[in-house]
Amino acid sequence: MSDIIQSTAEKIKKLQVQGARNVAIAAVKAIQTQAQQTKTNSKKQFLAELKQAQKIFATTRETEPLMRNAIRYLITQTEDVATEKVSELSQIVNVKATQFLRDLEESKEIIAEIGARRIQNNSVVFTHCHSSTVNHLFAKAKADGKNFKVICTETRPAFQGRITAKKLVDLGIETTFIVDSAARTFMNKVDAVFVGADAITSEGNVVNKIGTSSIAVLAMEARTPLYVVTELLKFNPETLSGECEKIEHRGIGEVWSEAPDGLKICNPAFDVTPNRYIHGLICEEGIIAPQTIVQVIKPKYPWIL
Amino acid sequence: MSDIIQSTAEKIKKLQVQGARNVAIAAVKAIQTQAQQTKTNSKKQFLAELKQAQKIFATTRETEPLMRNAIRYLITQTEDVATEKVSELSQIVNVKATQFLRDLEESKEIIAEIGARRIQNNSVVFTHCHSSTVNHLFAKAKADGKNFKVICTETRPAFQGRITAKKLVDLGIETTFIVDSAARTFMNKVDAVFVGADAITSEGNVVNKIGTSSIAVLAMEARTPLYVVTELLKFNPETLSGECEKIEHRGIGEVWSEAPDGLKICNPAFDVTPNRYIHGLICEEGIIAPQTIVQVIKPKYPWIL
Amino acid sequence: MSDIIQSTAEKIKKLQVQGARNVAIAAVKAIQTQAQQTKTNSKKQFLAELKQAQKIFATTRETEPLMRNAIRYLITQTEDVATEKVSELSQIVNVKATQFLRDLEESKEIIAEIGARRIQNNSVVFTHCHSSTVNHLFAKAKADGKNFKVICTETRPAFQGRITAKKLVDLGIETTFIVDSAARTFMNKVDAVFVGADAITSEGNVVNKIGTSSIAVLAMEARTPLYVVTELLKFNPETLSGECEKIEHRGIGEVWSEAPDGLKICNPAFDVTPNRYIHGLICEEGIIAPQTIVQVIKPKYPWIL
Amino acid sequence: MSDIIQSTAEKIKKLQVQGARNVAIAAVKAIQTQAQQTKTNSKKQFLAELKQAQKIFATTRETEPLMRNAIRYLITQTEDVATEKVSELSQIVNVKATQFLRDLEESKEIIAEIGARRIQNNSVVFTHCHSSTVNHLFAKAKADGKNFKVICTETRPAFQGRITAKKLVDLGIETTFIVDSAARTFMNKVDAVFVGADAITSEGNVVNKIGTSSIAVLAMEARTPLYVVTELLKFNPETLSGECEKIEHRGIGEVWSEAPDGLKICNPAFDVTPNRYIHGLICEEGIIAPQTIVQVIKPKYPWIL
Amino acid sequence: MSDIIQSTAEKIKKLQVQGARNVAIAAVKAIQTQAQQTKTNSKKQFLAELKQAQKIFATTRETEPLMRNAIRYLITQTEDVATEKVSELSQIVNVKATQFLRDLEESKEIIAEIGARRIQNNSVVFTHCHSSTVNHLFAKAKADGKNFKVICTETRPAFQGRITAKKLVDLGIETTFIVDSAARTFMNKVDAVFVGADAITSEGNVVNKIGTSSIAVLAMEARTPLYVVTELLKFNPETLSGECEKIEHRGIGEVWSEAPDGLKICNPAFDVTPNRYIHGLICEEGIIAPQTIVQVIKPKYPWIL
Amino acid sequence: MSDIIQSTAEKIKKLQVQGARNVAIAAVKAIQTQAQQTKTNSKKQFLAELKQAQKIFATTRETEPLMRNAIRYLITQTEDVATEKVSELSQIVNVKATQFLRDLEESKEIIAEIGARRIQNNSVVFTHCHSSTVNHLFAKAKADGKNFKVICTETRPAFQGRITAKKLVDLGIETTFIVDSAARTFMNKVDAVFVGADAITSEGNVVNKIGTSSIAVLAMEARTPLYVVTELLKFNPETLSGECEKIEHRGIGEVWSEAPDGLKICNPAFDVTPNRYIHGLICEEGIIAPQTIVQVIKPKYPWIL
Repeated sequence: MSDIIQSTAEKIKKLQVQGARNVAIAAVKAIQTQAQQTKTNSKKQFLAELKQAQKIFATTRETEPLMRNAIRYLITQTEDVATEKVSELSQIVNVKATQFLRDLEESKEIIAEIGARRIQNNSVVFTHCHSSTVNHLFAKAKADGKNFKVICTETRPAFQGRITAKKLVDLGIETTFIVDSAARTFMNKVDAVFVGADAITSEGNVVNKIGTSSIAVLAMEARTPLYVVTELLKFNPETLSGECEKIEHRGIGEVWSEAPDGLKICNPAFDVTPNRYIHGLICEEGIIAPQTIVQVIKPKYPWIL
Repeated sequence: MSDIIQSTAEKIKKLQVQGARNVAIAAVKAIQTQAQQTKTNSKKQFLAELKQAQKIFATTRETEPLMRNAIRYLITQTEDVATEKVSELSQIVNVKATQFLRDLEESKEIIAEIGARRIQNNSVVFTHCHSSTVNHLFAKAKADGKNFKVICTETRPAFQGRITAKKLVDLGIETTFIVDSAARTFMNKVDAVFVGADAITSEGNVVNKIGTSSIAVLAMEARTPLYVVTELLKFNPETLSGECEKIEHRGIGEVWSEAPDGLKICNPAFDVTPNRYIHGLICEEGIIAPQTIVQVIKPKYPWIL
Repeated sequence: MSDIIQSTAEKIKKLQVQGARNVAIAAVKAIQTQAQQTKTNSKKQFLAELKQAQKIFATTRETEPLMRNAIRYLITQTEDVATEKVSELSQIVNVKATQFLRDLEESKEIIAEIGARRIQNNSVVFTHCHSSTVNHLFAKAKADGKNFKVICTETRPAFQGRITAKKLVDLGIETTFIVDSAARTFMNKVDAVFVGADAITSEGNVVNKIGTSSIAVLAMEARTPLYVVTELLKFNPETLSGECEKIEHRGIGEVWSEAPDGLKICNPAFDVTPNRYIHGLICEEGIIAPQTIVQVIKPKYPWIL
Repeated sequence: MSDIIQSTAEKIKKLQVQGARNVAIAAVKAIQTQAQQTKTNSKKQFLAELKQAQKIFATTRETEPLMRNAIRYLITQTEDVATEKVSELSQIVNVKATQFLRDLEESKEIIAEIGARRIQNNSVVFTHCHSSTVNHLFAKAKADGKNFKVICTETRPAFQGRITAKKLVDLGIETTFIVDSAARTFMNKVDAVFVGADAITSEGNVVNKIGTSSIAVLAMEARTPLYVVTELLKFNPETLSGECEKIEHRGIGEVWSEAPDGLKICNPAFDVTPNRYIHGLICEEGIIAPQTIVQVIKPKYPWIL
Repeated sequence: MSDIIQSTAEKIKKLQVQGARNVAIAAVKAIQTQAQQTKTNSKKQFLAELKQAQKIFATTRETEPLMRNAIRYLITQTEDVATEKVSELSQIVNVKATQFLRDLEESKEIIAEIGARRIQNNSVVFTHCHSSTVNHLFAKAKADGKNFKVICTETRPAFQGRITAKKLVDLGIETTFIVDSAARTFMNKVDAVFVGADAITSEGNVVNKIGTSSIAVLAMEARTPLYVVTELLKFNPETLSGECEKIEHRGIGEVWSEAPDGLKICNPAFDVTPNRYIHGLICEEGIIAPQTIVQVIKPKYPWIL
Repeated sequence: MSDIIQSTAEKIKKLQVQGARNVAIAAVKAIQTQAQQTKTNSKKQFLAELKQAQKIFATTRETEPLMRNAIRYLITQTEDVATEKVSELSQIVNVKATQFLRDLEESKEIIAEIGARRIQNNSVVFTHCHSSTVNHLFAKAKADGKNFKVICTETRPAFQGRITAKKLVDLGIETTFIVDSAARTFMNKVDAVFVGADAITSEGNVVNKIGTSSIAVLAMEARTPLYVVTELLKFNPETLSGECEKIEHRGIGEVWSEAPDGLKICNPAFDVTPNRYIHGLICEEGIIAPQTIVQVIKPKYPWIL
């Protein structure tokens, strides 16, 4: 086993690499590297190494379907190839990995382009946590000459909202920063909410940063449309066969490092937003009703199911 | 003007004294002291000093109807007295202030007793921020032998939930501590929500710590009853004549002390929970429908209207 | 202790006397008789006998505030009298009991008259379980010449809906009889729902036969107004001071007499309908918003609080 | 019978006098005049004339509780007087009528003052139909220096919204005029809705111009508060005893004067807004929860019940 | 016509065979037998016999799309075959029937496996009526070592809940048995609801035992997810072309055998649950949003449309 | 450029041709004619003429996806053809245009047939504005012998409801005509609502005559199903890639020709009904959940995406 797998997995575990896209990219690159560096001559062994890497990455974080899908893609594409030559297989991995990363980048562009059209001129939008895809969408809208303001939550416990806020200010977008609990106070003045996704279930429910589902309920209460901005590959195919998306629980120190003895701290990283609170899913195939996620994925990524 | 007024007002402004009850108690005691220490012999001047104190306290914090009501009580009770002797007037203030503080204490006891009955054995309750009245209710229920767990939010930005959590742990109550955004994740397992109040409007809406109204919406979504635990004197009589309860905005440093230049931070301290999300108001007159607040106050505190 | 108390209490316990009104009437008459038959000459002893009766009746059924209020009325009215003569006290009980029963009867008439006005000509109304007050209302509307149909549930487990259905057919009212579960299928064609009450809480929530709260939810879903038809004396004053209305659990044989071993049967007799699902309370003071129940009761029955 | 009664009643019937306030004022003045002009010397006859006038006005329009309450006031105040002298009775009517009209005017001022406080600076408000009380409120807010915009519906079939629009433009208030059906399109940008009332029921439901209840539903959907601005005397005491507020149906020519044969036109003038959609009732006693209407009226206008 | 068709149809009509699956299985087997026993040599006649059987079964029960789909399958598969030999056709029927039954059995297994994953350890689930598919799912979860409790309604009028309860007790699952009307009382403590289906419409609405739609509304009120557990072949293709699913009305004796003369009893066997109350459809293709039913069926069972 | 394009475009602009179907038909016929009359011999020029026509029609009205789709169809079908001969291309346009119009006509028939099955005997249905497709559906139901009544709004500002009412009366259908604002008053007695569509978005939201979305909200409030009756070709493919459907604003004279100076009149012709308020879309592919619109269109009209 190449060191690159272990070290990358370690970085993911320790949150040195974070964000669903970054995690997936790191894993794909690690496997690409591993495949180039392999010392085996046997196809069987080569595939075993890939599966070993898959196993290692699977244990890094619980809620990372994009990474899992990426690895599954590399493996299924390689397994099916007729050749027995490792050098050719290694090349396949290389090509497919490169293509996957390019496609992922392209998806981000397409999504930003589509979603930016849903930002009206002179409007107020709202976001939660930090999503590079959502940020890219805002950047695109700004670049398109749209004039709009963003309200952005701090996103406890890890304050990812601060990353979002900094980037928005750097982009020259007028940004208001609030504590998570203040979402309802501002919601009546918001024209649209844009949030990212960490996972999507087969019913079209969305797993995202803790607090997202509350915002979705409050958006519905105020008749404010909420968009989930996401690559389709966040879909978790195991939910189709009944698995519940696992919700990672993070360390309690993130919440309160000097908590009194005897206090139980519970720190779920994500929550689940039911499809009925989602106006639309903005993905590389366009803006779709979340209920149809499986139908949209099937022809686009047949290997996923 | 006695120094005690200025110095107390200063402490309130700087949050050295906080919590609606503590603020009201401090103001009452300061006025009581001032009345004892007055140097005037003229009734007119004596009353002018009281009104001057009222004016000073009025500017300390925006959302403090309990303090305002307390001071109004002392003044109306004194104004109506027939005597011209300042010594007698000073004595009136003294007696009324003592009585007010005793009544306030008694209300807290009655409220705790009533509210504790609404905690079922082996149940899970939820609270937000720190309310000494709510905490007293939990202590009473525990003392009554009730077995129950509390879920408690950290309450950004000032983390008052940590005070609550510490006290509950000290009381031996099993407590789970979460970030504010996680409320919805836990709500389905909650049997009842108990929150305090900073102000009550004439329609029966409740002003309380930022985040309360979101929790109320989420409680309704999960068919979980939400109780507001409060002395009736949190009622703001000016709302009856149309004034909107003012919502204090606190310093931005509470939210993010090292925010980037150009970022706007908005830090409202309270929000408004509409009466339709409130199962009942637990007050010294019993558990009432919030819509009837004015009717309940009228015979109890006629001087307030 | 007079035998009449024990035997009446027994009948209530065994459901030989049932229905909130009938239970209260029986208890009042028993206490009236006891007071006539007392052998004591001491006021203290006389009052002790009354309180003993109160205690016995209190244990017969859990959800009977009308009976409890009736007995409380007799005792408070007697206690306050200046005389020491038992003969006079006995006469007081007699007079007050007679008056209570007459008032109760009169309330029923007034309620029927008021409520009948809310039955539109050529309309369809819906009821659940058997309430003599609701039935009286229907009879009044029929006597007023109104043409209307009633849909009536069977009301498991004890099938009290059959009593209702029989009486309605006898009154010549066109009646459709359905299983409880079919309520939603018919609700869209219903113009108004009329149900009785076993208890009313201080928030204006209504405790009534199991299934009532579901019907209330379904009525709201279909924008059908639901009226609770009830004497104000069903109000439980203990709820004001925090007590939860106790929900009686009846024998499991009512549900399934030949249940398999190991099966747990749960048979709550009542449920709680939140005030937000109730269009109006039809009582002897008129049609009122349920939230105001305490305010309406206070001047009418001051002894109750 | 004085001609003034007949001629005034005729004007009301033909809508030459319209608007609940104007109708009531006209009727009061007519009765005042009649009482001055009476030729009888008998108290009995004098009272009979008043009641005859009451009967005549009762048949003019179906949904006019303010007029009915005004006349009831004059009669009850006169009946109770000990004197037998017609000249004195006539004077009583005169005084009471004058007082009633003055009080009505004063209520309008108080309501405008209270309600104007609920218009935020730089906000958008919405109204429907024409209500002189609502217009007065807008004028007051404008006079207070508030900067706000009004969206106003045309209010089919009689286009009363045009009257409102003209008056608002004259007041220098920025006004947007829309068809009734467009209310939902604009509701998300509205900060508060203000509508008048033609009648209020004992449950706190409000009868107002057709379309009001739809706007109320749409306001709730968008979390926009809706205020009903109304004198308490619009309360219809007969609803307390069960009567449904009658809804006047106007001529079909108002809707379509050249309708094809065989087409049924239905033209209800009012609809009923349930209390759950009303944020608050702005009346001369302050801003109240609509559910408490009866409790608020009782001490203020005891003769009405 | 083979006797087997008539006798099987008779059994279905008389409810000697019941449950959508059992009815379909019986019909398939009868047609299989008929095809083996046919005496004709003409293909035309052979197909006519099949269609005659189809016609007979169609009249047995109104709400049996699974049976209708099964028969349609056998006929369409046979019609399309090129051969004219009855022996071959008969063999086709035999093979297809066997395959259909095997597939149906397999679907049940897959569904149980998928659905069992949605039962959390230490959770409480709820069911209504008796569905062999739901029961199989519970058995699977139990076999998987899940610890959970079931609340199960009696399901009036025919008490099919008793069958469910018996089977669950036999499986060693802790079961609580309640009357249908008590569903709301228990719903707040339920983690998930699982019900079967008798038919599915093209919009994704579900026809199931009377009472199901009420439970769905109450589950939504309490934020409890409701799953419909069903083979896709319960889909009724005629709803796509506008037909409403027919709701069978059963005998009134099931409800009240000794009803008084003049009472109308109405006994609909099923009701319709709108897709917005359904969290997910658990079928042999996975857990899907009910809205997508037609899209899921199309590639799986193309002959059905 | 043929005159026929300019003159037809002019008629559409001036509303001499109106209704989405009529507009599309006129545009198709104009292009058909233009293609016959072309004077060019160059394919390039021929296609340029088609695209010029497309451009001209695109500017006539903002909300006309059916017309846009029709033109796109003609162009894509012609572009792909191998030939260079203009005579052949012209023939292609002719054939495709004829086919498109025939298909459109056929869709209308199929939709009417499907939708008519959703009108129950002895029911009341509701419609808004004038849709030839909805009217055809009503005519079909009437022809099928269904007995039903229609409630129809006048549809301000242009009173298209009068066209509907006249046609319904001519068909012998009992029709009640109301102002738009009266919809809520009648909704509780309505069994189903049928409206047309001007555009459908990729999420399954429906753009239709102003007022439709309010009716949809009110239908949901009363549990009345609302059907959108529409050809699939009303789908706007640009919404899939993020464009918002543009809402045409018509002249202010339609609303109030003699409005006072300084009054702003706003006259949006359409509004957007969210998919959650739509029971089903009745289209040529059957009755579908609106969320699945893209999936249904893809195989049917692949050229549209």
